[in-house]
Amino acid sequence: MSLLSMLFGSKPKTASLAKERLQLIIAREHADAAGPDYLPELQKELIQVISKYVKVNPEDIKVQLEKQDNYEVLEVNIVLADQDG
Amino acid sequence: MSLLSMLFGSKPKTASLAKERLQLIIAREHADAAGPDYLPELQKELIQVISKYVKVNPEDIKVQLEKQDNYEVLEVNIVLADQDG
Repeated sequence: MSLLSMLFGSKPKTASLAKERLQLIIAREHADAAGPDYLPELQKELIQVISKYVKVNPEDIKVQLEKQDNYEVLEVNIVLADQDG
Repeated sequence: MSLLSMLFGSKPKTASLAKERLQLIIAREHADAAGPDYLPELQKELIQVISKYVKVNPEDIKVQLEKQDNYEVLEVNIVLADQDG
């Protein structure tokens, strides 16, 4: 589960951690670095879909786009608002 | 960029690699392990959104759901069909 610890950091469990966290990573590998860059648009739509399932405050969404050679990695970190349960 | 090498494996660049690959990871950390499991439904909708941006053959989509304690990690690997360009 080393991927998990990379995703959420090294200390995911603390007593104060009552909130739910969601992380979305979209990684694109493409042969041609000049291909269309649809990831930012895609990200917006994906967040809309996620919002249908969980309560999300826009200010609790952190987005990071990283590009290198033939890669693009879009990372979306969401701290969810308190759910009903 | 060690996350990238974990995502795509250790040899991402080969001469034969002309196809585009997309990887989607949804990681959910929740305090209550008994929370509603919306990830499979969410995954279906996310793939529908991705299909609006890129050509995807259903048989080229590999989905893996991993659960452990308070984590769920949904991993979607897509080898894209040849694009127009």
